[in-house]
Amino acid sequence: MGMWIGRNRKARVTYGFDEIALVPGAVTINPNEVDISFQVPRGDREPLKLGIPILASAMDGVVDVRFAIAMGKLGGLAVLNLEGVQTRYENPDEVLGQVVAADKDHVTSLLQKIYLEPIREDLIARRVEEIKAAGGYAAVSSIPQKADRFAAIAQEAGADLFVVQSTVSTVRHISTEYQSLELAKFCAGLNIPVIIGNTVGYDVTLEIMQCGVAGVLVGVGPGAACTSRGVLGLGVPQVTATVDCAAARDQYHKQSGRYVPIITDGGMSKGGDVCKALACGSDAVMVGSAFAKAEEAPGKGNHWGMATPHANLPRGTRIKVGTTGSLKQILFGPAEVDDGSQNLVGAITTCMGNVGAASIREFQETEIVIAPSIKTEGKLFQTVQSVGMGTR
Amino acid sequence: MGMWIGRNRKARVTYGFDEIALVPGAVTINPNEVDISFQVPRGDREPLKLGIPILASAMDGVVDVRFAIAMGKLGGLAVLNLEGVQTRYENPDEVLGQVVAADKDHVTSLLQKIYLEPIREDLIARRVEEIKAAGGYAAVSSIPQKADRFAAIAQEAGADLFVVQSTVSTVRHISTEYQSLELAKFCAGLNIPVIIGNTVGYDVTLEIMQCGVAGVLVGVGPGAACTSRGVLGLGVPQVTATVDCAAARDQYHKQSGRYVPIITDGGMSKGGDVCKALACGSDAVMVGSAFAKAEEAPGKGNHWGMATPHANLPRGTRIKVGTTGSLKQILFGPAEVDDGSQNLVGAITTCMGNVGAASIREFQETEIVIAPSIKTEGKLFQTVQSVGMGTR
Amino acid sequence: MGMWIGRNRKARVTYGFDEIALVPGAVTINPNEVDISFQVPRGDREPLKLGIPILASAMDGVVDVRFAIAMGKLGGLAVLNLEGVQTRYENPDEVLGQVVAADKDHVTSLLQKIYLEPIREDLIARRVEEIKAAGGYAAVSSIPQKADRFAAIAQEAGADLFVVQSTVSTVRHISTEYQSLELAKFCAGLNIPVIIGNTVGYDVTLEIMQCGVAGVLVGVGPGAACTSRGVLGLGVPQVTATVDCAAARDQYHKQSGRYVPIITDGGMSKGGDVCKALACGSDAVMVGSAFAKAEEAPGKGNHWGMATPHANLPRGTRIKVGTTGSLKQILFGPAEVDDGSQNLVGAITTCMGNVGAASIREFQETEIVIAPSIKTEGKLFQTVQSVGMGTR
Amino acid sequence: MGMWIGRNRKARVTYGFDEIALVPGAVTINPNEVDISFQVPRGDREPLKLGIPILASAMDGVVDVRFAIAMGKLGGLAVLNLEGVQTRYENPDEVLGQVVAADKDHVTSLLQKIYLEPIREDLIARRVEEIKAAGGYAAVSSIPQKADRFAAIAQEAGADLFVVQSTVSTVRHISTEYQSLELAKFCAGLNIPVIIGNTVGYDVTLEIMQCGVAGVLVGVGPGAACTSRGVLGLGVPQVTATVDCAAARDQYHKQSGRYVPIITDGGMSKGGDVCKALACGSDAVMVGSAFAKAEEAPGKGNHWGMATPHANLPRGTRIKVGTTGSLKQILFGPAEVDDGSQNLVGAITTCMGNVGAASIREFQETEIVIAPSIKTEGKLFQTVQSVGMGTR
Repeated sequence: MGMWIGRNRKARVTYGFDEIALVPGAVTINPNEVDISFQVPRGDREPLKLGIPILASAMDGVVDVRFAIAMGKLGGLAVLNLEGVQTRYENPDEVLGQVVAADKDHVTSLLQKIYLEPIREDLIARRVEEIKAAGGYAAVSSIPQKADRFAAIAQEAGADLFVVQSTVSTVRHISTEYQSLELAKFCAGLNIPVIIGNTVGYDVTLEIMQCGVAGVLVGVGPGAACTSRGVLGLGVPQVTATVDCAAARDQYHKQSGRYVPIITDGGMSKGGDVCKALACGSDAVMVGSAFAKAEEAPGKGNHWGMATPHANLPRGTRIKVGTTGSLKQILFGPAEVDDGSQNLVGAITTCMGNVGAASIREFQETEIVIAPSIKTEGKLFQTVQSVGMGTR
Repeated sequence: MGMWIGRNRKARVTYGFDEIALVPGAVTINPNEVDISFQVPRGDREPLKLGIPILASAMDGVVDVRFAIAMGKLGGLAVLNLEGVQTRYENPDEVLGQVVAADKDHVTSLLQKIYLEPIREDLIARRVEEIKAAGGYAAVSSIPQKADRFAAIAQEAGADLFVVQSTVSTVRHISTEYQSLELAKFCAGLNIPVIIGNTVGYDVTLEIMQCGVAGVLVGVGPGAACTSRGVLGLGVPQVTATVDCAAARDQYHKQSGRYVPIITDGGMSKGGDVCKALACGSDAVMVGSAFAKAEEAPGKGNHWGMATPHANLPRGTRIKVGTTGSLKQILFGPAEVDDGSQNLVGAITTCMGNVGAASIREFQETEIVIAPSIKTEGKLFQTVQSVGMGTR
Repeated sequence: MGMWIGRNRKARVTYGFDEIALVPGAVTINPNEVDISFQVPRGDREPLKLGIPILASAMDGVVDVRFAIAMGKLGGLAVLNLEGVQTRYENPDEVLGQVVAADKDHVTSLLQKIYLEPIREDLIARRVEEIKAAGGYAAVSSIPQKADRFAAIAQEAGADLFVVQSTVSTVRHISTEYQSLELAKFCAGLNIPVIIGNTVGYDVTLEIMQCGVAGVLVGVGPGAACTSRGVLGLGVPQVTATVDCAAARDQYHKQSGRYVPIITDGGMSKGGDVCKALACGSDAVMVGSAFAKAEEAPGKGNHWGMATPHANLPRGTRIKVGTTGSLKQILFGPAEVDDGSQNLVGAITTCMGNVGAASIREFQETEIVIAPSIKTEGKLFQTVQSVGMGTR
Repeated sequence: MGMWIGRNRKARVTYGFDEIALVPGAVTINPNEVDISFQVPRGDREPLKLGIPILASAMDGVVDVRFAIAMGKLGGLAVLNLEGVQTRYENPDEVLGQVVAADKDHVTSLLQKIYLEPIREDLIARRVEEIKAAGGYAAVSSIPQKADRFAAIAQEAGADLFVVQSTVSTVRHISTEYQSLELAKFCAGLNIPVIIGNTVGYDVTLEIMQCGVAGVLVGVGPGAACTSRGVLGLGVPQVTATVDCAAARDQYHKQSGRYVPIITDGGMSKGGDVCKALACGSDAVMVGSAFAKAEEAPGKGNHWGMATPHANLPRGTRIKVGTTGSLKQILFGPAEVDDGSQNLVGAITTCMGNVGAASIREFQETEIVIAPSIKTEGKLFQTVQSVGMGTR
């Protein structure tokens, strides 16, 4: 396994979404009759149940209170970032307006400035309560260093799920400057389930699952607004990352009897990408840029990562994705665009029908082929005319 | 066989037209002396005989009655779609004119609206009769759900061939909402041959052939106007798809003594692509966008797929291919363009001469090489100047 | 050997110039002290000796009498095409002027018309005599069907070398319409050496060498103005083609004691490509577009293939390469451009110095690596600014 | 090992920076607590110690006296080219101004002219003294043919390090025209350490190390302004080159007990590239174009190679990289750009933290994956909008 990249050194070959394709089945199923529900385990309690296997990313151009409520009503789950503008500003819409208006040469320093404003703990509680008031699930996130403090506040305020998220998460983090998060203790100390990410490896995923988490986010650097792969050279393309983490999940399930879902996070802007992530073994997906296009998204068609405002080494950029329709349209159609960025749920069910998968668990067994030409074969006109698969 | 794409999971490597090339032979033949005829078996009756191994796709920008008649006179066969505008409208040219005139941002919703008009069964019969009145073969198509009803009407009206076509066709389709087509019974119940598609797999092709079909269409998603590969992530590039289905055909032939032709459908816009499809093992090709360029095509240089008007999840787009010459020129030359899109038959015979194949069956044995650089080596000027192989 | 491209079918992986690189040696040599001479065997007579291993293609935008004389004086050899404008027109410059002036949409039909003019046998003799009058070697070419007749005239007029050239040449050509060239008899019947091409295979090259030829041209479809690879799907990239034919040459040498040089023809526009061809095992190269840039070239910066004027199925296009300097500059520098298209001889000697090859025969043993990133690693600025390796 | 590129001939597959990625670790470390120091051995004396593992290239648009002093104060080391404008002109800023002002069609001939001015030995000494006067290390370079003479002058003037640099350096260079540099004798005859380059091979690197050098520069042709790979076809992509040379270093260390660092030189414009070079086994990197962007760089945002002014066969070009910030910002941030070209040191420490490497030696053991999609997966918007990883 692996190819020689030079004397005495081998490297595995890894794959991204654009390099694979899903193979139609020998049996097909009416798309209306497939089951795409998703659940997050909650120990002895009833799992947290979602109608669709799609989460919205904890990014400031995507999720605010209003968006989280809308997403919940449609069967999905949006994660609100506790370290973004929503908890730094009483009225975040004003600074969001500045980001929207900034030109590309000044947006990085503007973001750096906006995120210097301190986080207000009262706003953490308030945002959770505002989401809960609408009746759905409330999910919030922070980085590991803030998790102990913020999770306690959020749980107290009624949150249903806590997400601990950083570029690369591990169980073993070495620092003498600060206290590392003790993940097992953290999970044990909370009453609500914990999802942690991001990761890309088999061994790390196993270690994380052994700490009692309720889910793992898969993906380092694939996000549409992320530049970690360029700035740090770090990452593993999402197909291989998902397959590896799915193997860890299955291994942990065999060892422990606990099925801990994995959620592929980042790199999926079209229905086909979402289908590929699930077929690679994911239980659900977390999507950012595709939802930044929703009328309900606070970024008004702008999208940026949480590492973008980093004071010293920004690892993201602000992209303009435009506003193309309602969140409902993006999730369930009817699609008015021809590029696959609307009706993500319809894409999942149609694809499942065509490969003959009656459930996400069956979908995870889809035959995959390596197919570098899958996006280009026959598509010259679409590319040249910027329509369909050539849409930019 | 296959490469590791991650832990515990392998995938085959698959190939598209642009990644292979055909190897010149050790013997060459005068191109004027090769046999390119094609026939569709009709059980105990004489096979349906065609002078050239090229079919025109059942797409509304390509085939109407006039085009079908012209194609038949030139030795080919055009398939008329019974679910397109020709059977929804007394005078389809009017709505075709609207599609031609629509700009790219509104064409999807216009198509969705146009295809809401119900299909008229009297028009099914009339279109078949109009084609037959000219003396050639009449071939028509529908999706599986409509096949029982429409095939009966078409056969009654004198059709010579019925094509059952959907994105992915299988023998085993599961649905409780509606009655699936029973393929073997369907074929047995008709007096005219049935071609079914599309498919890409060895096992599925074998199962389909065992139902008594007269041909199989190969290809999921390669079409110039199709976006299934982006929207659903689904498909297998045409080289591998054709080789796999050809293997199934040969296996079925060995088992049953019946030779059921396969027809590669989609992804071929130039003579070279057509040659590659045949060399990969196909008995004939079905072409869409190349014929949408004909003066006789009803789309006036516009081309769109049958999945484009889908109400909820369109999986196609409208592309503009332009009108470049007569159908006769596209098939037999003289080519006035330098990009290989005219004189498709001349390309087949010249290539057969150069690889030393006296018949399509011999052509199917051509040595193939994997050659990713085949379209670019030495071609910088053509690319930059948009001439020859760089034509857009 | 080979990869599976589908069920029951394998294909070799083949390589083009842009996919490989040459590895610096453990020994290096002063470039001024390497030997790059080339010779064409002439049976028992002294071989035809050239100072440099570079031939100019028999193409009408490249070689006329004046160019052939200039090339000879610089140590190279230019081949005059006996089926081009030089033998159809008393004064070819007039029609060449029309080609230069034509726009890209009308140039194909103009060329088709110009080449309808019949070939005058008196002009064949006259062109040979004009070249010989300057004191150098005269080399001329025709297609196989005309070779018997034209070679006799050319030899009579004093030609030193006859080239038989077609898209794909084999010893065994099957036709009932016309008489195929009997290659062994043809070679035996002439007093001057015969070079034949083009070919790309080991077996075919062996068969051709056994007929007594003095050289073989390697390459199907790589030419800058050629579109055979798109129109017919035919060809093998030049790296693999050259390596295969070099193996045949070595095998024939072992069997017969005769060393028959191979000449890689097409696909080389820069010094680096020429170096790669020689390092792959070629004894010399034949170059077209690089010389079409010379002030001496009759095409005035325009370049087209001999298959472009084909009446029914043109397999070439007219490209504009511009006039960049004198032939001497292109061959020996000083280079005034930064893209490697000038001082081809300097590139060969410098590269030989760096890999430590003292002769072409040693150069043929250079270590090669597969290096898809060789043209792009670190070159973003050159690409974006269209300078150096990004020059178009 | 190796793939067949044709009959009887194999070639290794080699990799460049854009084709690989670094895998996050199972352990992570606080980036503030990693050690990135670098040292150049000086025999029995104390090694030359640098705070950061980054050298600035001996190129005229990058390093002059002022830049060298600034670089030294920041913990790095800049190499001054003794054959550039600094030693040919009393006041080099005037000719540098001409280069900056020249348009792209005339810059090559201007450079050829500027570098015809003879080198003044008094200026060699003076430049070294000027750098030393500021208190840091002085490093200077020449080609092998000038090394004996120039190194003596430089050492006499107080230089701390001498770099012998040419396109391809070997221990065994054959020439009858001139005397080759005897490397072992040269190193033994100097009191200051010698770094030699460039090279790309395992065997050559071993031979060079056995001559007593203090470091080896790795890389043939990757530089942003270099065109050797196009002009000569020569080179090995940097990932494989670095891995191979690192293996030679480790082998030499085992044999001799001497650890001779290797320095990857060229092809790294972003932090991610630098991280990859170190993870491939390099001890430090030499960077040109990234520093040409500094306010302190004499080229004012212009960059060209030392082979560009070659009188007969220029193998480089002048590129415009723009001035984007101070040298301090490029090395240590805060980054104001989002493309990874600023805060190179922050990128190294952050990446080391994420892969769990506490030192450069541990960083060299990072797991690498082959990941052709690493720069494109999910990045369509960045590419289209020319932001972040799509910045040009």
